Amino acid sequence: MRIALDAMGGDHAPGPIVAGALAALKSDPDLQVVLVGDRHQVESCFKETPPAGIELFHCTQVVSMEDSPVVALRQKPDNSISRCWQLLAEHKVQAIVSAGNTGAMVAGGLRLRRYLKNVRRPGIAALMPTLRGPCVLLDVGANVKPKPEHLYQYGVMGSIFARYILERQRPTIGLMNVGSEEQKGHDLAKETHALFNASPLREQFIGNIEGRDIHQGACDVIVTDGFVGNVVLKVCEGVFDFVMKMTTKELLGALSQEKAQAQQAIQALINRYDYHEHGGAPLLGIDGICIICHGSSGERAIKNAVGVAARYARSRLNQTIVQELASGPLQVTEED
Amino acid sequence: MRIALDAMGGDHAPGPIVAGALAALKSDPDLQVVLVGDRHQVESCFKETPPAGIELFHCTQVVSMEDSPVVALRQKPDNSISRCWQLLAEHKVQAIVSAGNTGAMVAGGLRLRRYLKNVRRPGIAALMPTLRGPCVLLDVGANVKPKPEHLYQYGVMGSIFARYILERQRPTIGLMNVGSEEQKGHDLAKETHALFNASPLREQFIGNIEGRDIHQGACDVIVTDGFVGNVVLKVCEGVFDFVMKMTTKELLGALSQEKAQAQQAIQALINRYDYHEHGGAPLLGIDGICIICHGSSGERAIKNAVGVAARYARSRLNQTIVQELASGPLQVTEED
Repeated sequence: MRIALDAMGGDHAPGPIVAGALAALKSDPDLQVVLVGDRHQVESCFKETPPAGIELFHCTQVVSMEDSPVVALRQKPDNSISRCWQLLAEHKVQAIVSAGNTGAMVAGGLRLRRYLKNVRRPGIAALMPTLRGPCVLLDVGANVKPKPEHLYQYGVMGSIFARYILERQRPTIGLMNVGSEEQKGHDLAKETHALFNASPLREQFIGNIEGRDIHQGACDVIVTDGFVGNVVLKVCEGVFDFVMKMTTKELLGALSQEKAQAQQAIQALINRYDYHEHGGAPLLGIDGICIICHGSSGERAIKNAVGVAARYARSRLNQTIVQELASGPLQVTEED
Repeated sequence: MRIALDAMGGDHAPGPIVAGALAALKSDPDLQVVLVGDRHQVESCFKETPPAGIELFHCTQVVSMEDSPVVALRQKPDNSISRCWQLLAEHKVQAIVSAGNTGAMVAGGLRLRRYLKNVRRPGIAALMPTLRGPCVLLDVGANVKPKPEHLYQYGVMGSIFARYILERQRPTIGLMNVGSEEQKGHDLAKETHALFNASPLREQFIGNIEGRDIHQGACDVIVTDGFVGNVVLKVCEGVFDFVMKMTTKELLGALSQEKAQAQQAIQALINRYDYHEHGGAPLLGIDGICIICHGSSGERAIKNAVGVAARYARSRLNQTIVQELASGPLQVTEED
């Protein structure tokens, strides 16, 4: 199992990226992690000789978080994200992982057009905490103007991901909308709703869900366009952070003897639900495995993401996507 | 100051609606509240003779929360929401307030087409708590497929609302998007971005904001389409509820002597930031005042909403909207 890890991607790279790679190796000795980045900078992160499971792939350029993805990929051909994609395209690795510029990771994949057979557009799937365990939200940013067929395919892919990675037997699927009634929302929502109801997924499709249903655990997979999904993901992060700050302040003011215990309990909660620590979001629909991590990912998040990539690579997830899309109502008949 | 209050609208109407009306009257004796609804049901909510500030407008029908707005308005002509709009159209009241079916409230207003001069499409403005005090998010559901000009007008109207109701001197305006860079997002976002930058609001416009910026208090007014705004509003509600539940559970497990104090502190926080208690969301752009409340609104929320309606009615908010839209780059030249 060989996984390429973008050593230059992320707010504090390469330090926590290298540390995450070492932690992942420790818990899964069958891994081989290829650190892609500036040799000098990466090597300076090792306190001792790297273990045998670590390789280095040198490249000289970095796409920064502020760079325009498309421009950066063109102007910096030797950047670590493009090199990761190249290793994947050449079958030298089975998976790639990056906490760098999300737009560049997606653009790199779309540019190669190495989609799985029958997939029309890849989508990013994020895990969201709920009262009933994590659910899958997709797309969270690869496709800001999708067609109904794309959203339907996200339902298929998200559902397979929930089966293989979250171990849900028969995942339920909901469509993000502004009301529960069938006729709600804009044309995209209405057409997607009709498509699901006429598809092999109709038994798993629970119809529209609203924003407040997500964290109740209303369904296992939530389908939406990349604009709404991206906004939702970041709003959740923001509210969580806001509420935790307010709660800490309020409690420290109200308690006298058990301040320390309260702080510890809140910290435990933050660690458990931290949106940065969920182990990355896969770009589903790619022929290969691509995991996109939060820019602020630390050692633990990178370790988790490499772990998810390995588990994904050992599963039949991608083969199942190809099969189930082939038997669906929407075989690819045109390029778009 | 005469305000019509939909006595039949809301999950527990008419009880908390009538109680809210009485509470509003107590704190503002200059009010005259017209309770619109079934005379028998409304009267049964009074323990003693209603004060002079209460009037009753009898009607026989109710739009339920599950009703399709357009169908219900047509099939139930004597419903309390249509009667409220009628009172407003006939200038018998200055404002209307309802916690009933939001879609029907909006549809009632759009059907009358009593827009303020120069307004192309009304939008619902919701208040959101942030670390720097409340901000205005609009539209949250009146217009799920807006044009860039509509979003620009939401910026103008939201900014005036923030000046008059939130007392911000010179409100900043942000555009909800999936990244901070100018070229981010779908066509609607890019075109709206350009429109603001070429408008008299360009000095107040801070550009794109992302989901996680909202609760940091990144700006005073956030402009978005009604689909995204509605999802964001409800997601915030859901995450808040989720985090409060998890925090309570975690703390009660961790503390021994100060459980009661912790519970009290959390309850205070819930009361302060409760999304149901914010006093309703105005439908801006209507010639008159229309405040839409959460279906679960209790006495306090209704009292707050009536208070906001009165404050709005006493201000020059609507006149200012007409003036500032007239001097903007986008006078109404066509109906759409």
